[in-house]
Parts: sequence; C-alpha cells; structure tokens
Amino acid sequence: MPSAGLEAGSNKVDVAVDLGNPLLNRTVDGFLKIGAVGACRVVAEDAFDCIHRGDISKRQLEETLKKMCKEGAYWGAVAGVYVGMEYGVERARGDRDWKNALIGGIATGALVSAATNNKGNKIAQDAITGGAIATAVEFINYLT
Amino acid sequence: MPSAGLEAGSNKVDVAVDLGNPLLNRTVDGFLKIGAVGACRVVAEDAFDCIHRGDISKRQLEETLKKMCKEGAYWGAVAGVYVGMEYGVERARGDRDWKNALIGGIATGALVSAATNNKGNKIAQDAITGGAIATAVEFINYLT
Repeated sequence: MPSAGLEAGSNKVDVAVDLGNPLLNRTVDGFLKIGAVGACRVVAEDAFDCIHRGDISKRQLEETLKKMCKEGAYWGAVAGVYVGMEYGVERARGDRDWKNALIGGIATGALVSAATNNKGNKIAQDAITGGAIATAVEFINYLT
Repeated sequence: MPSAGLEAGSNKVDVAVDLGNPLLNRTVDGFLKIGAVGACRVVAEDAFDCIHRGDISKRQLEETLKKMCKEGAYWGAVAGVYVGMEYGVERARGDRDWKNALIGGIATGALVSAATNNKGNKIAQDAITGGAIATAVEFINYLT
C-alpha cells in the first residue's frame, strides 16, 4: 500500500493510499518514497551551501523549493517506472531473480533516456547502463 | 565468502576465496561481482556499437578489453567500498536499517569523489548524492 511517512523521535505520521491494484500500489509507493529522498537531497545540498556561504535569502529559499519539486518528481518518476517494470516482469516471468532487475533496469534506462529527448544510439547505451546498474544493485543486496 | 560465478545452462563454475574476515570477504565479494557487471556493461555497449556500424577490428577489440578492465575496476572499487562501509557501520551501530545505507552511501560518495581529484565543495555534494542514492535503493528493496 503506498504510504508516505514522517518520523520524529517516537512520533510517526503515516499516509497510506490503496489503489486496489498491486502494480499501481507499488509504482505510487516508489514514486512517493524515492521522490521524498530526492527532495531531501536538494535540502541537504542547499543547506550545506548556506552554511558554507554563511547567509540565506528569501529568493534562494524559493529556488530550493522549486528544485525540491523538480528533483523529487524526477527521482520519483524513475523509481516508479523501475519498481512497476520490475514487478510487471516478475509477474510475467513468474520468477524472482536478478534477471527481473536487469530487464526492469534496461526498460527504465530506455524510457528515461527517451523521455529526456535522447536519440537512437544514446537510448540504447542508457538502456544498457540502466540494466547494469540495476543488476549491480541486486547483487549488492544479495551480499548483505 | 567471495565467489565469482559463471553459469551457462545447467553448468556452473564457481570460484570462492575465504579471507578469514567477514568485512574483507564482503568487500572482495562486492568488488568481484560488481566489477564483473561493469565489465559486462562495456561488452554489451561495444557489441551494440559493432552491430550498429557493421564491422569489427582488432584494434577495437583491444580497446574494448582495456575499457572492460578500467570500468570493471572502477565499478568494483565503488561497490567494494560501499559494501565494506555498510557492513562496518552495521557492526558499529548494531542495527540493520536504512541509516546504514545512508551512512555507507555518504562515506562512499565522499571517498570516490576525493579519489577522482575533486575538491572541498564538490566532495560534500557528491557525499550527499551518494547517501541519497543509497537510501533510495534501500527503500526500493523494502518495496519489492
């Protein structure tokens, strides 16, 4: 079930949405969680920038907020596509192994590359890189 | 135990090395497995290039081999550092959760960035990005 959570000490806020379809649920869940991570990355980076320069302005805060939305949406979209693809491949193949991650990574790499206006060769290269990264991550998981 | 495997049909070749230390074992295991994935990525990319252009030369094969070694070593080193860091943090904290991945990712990002001759600010940014990516991957694992 897609849920977005906030935790501070022992207090926990959880938002959960059930869309009635496991594929859709996973995709939205991936989008929300990884989007939040992407947004946090922007906050951390800009906070570090502020500390480093020693000042903070309203205009910069607005820019950070804008960047948070943009990068959160990007990270969330990539994660959502990957999670949905991997789950779809798992259901279609009926197997749970690293090949799902490979196929999901290839499909995600190709889709993301095509969505960012790349052409022909570059899309194929990004698909291969996406598959390799997803496989590498899957292997790391089995290690630990 | 670090092992590198080859599987073709039902035939399997496995190489296993025991270094007598779980931290070292994991690091070497990560290096071998992810290094192999990185090398495969180069092969896939260059094979696609060959098919696309329709010819193949000895010089290019040599170049592919060189690129395989270079990229395999790079991917393997990054994975080895990350796996070792995450395991070390897990042992030090005594907990298994996403914070290990976050700390491992930050440390790996900083180390890799420093190793590629980046300076001050850029290292901090790469550390933040490394932590965010590791956390995102950890979250995706919990989803599926």
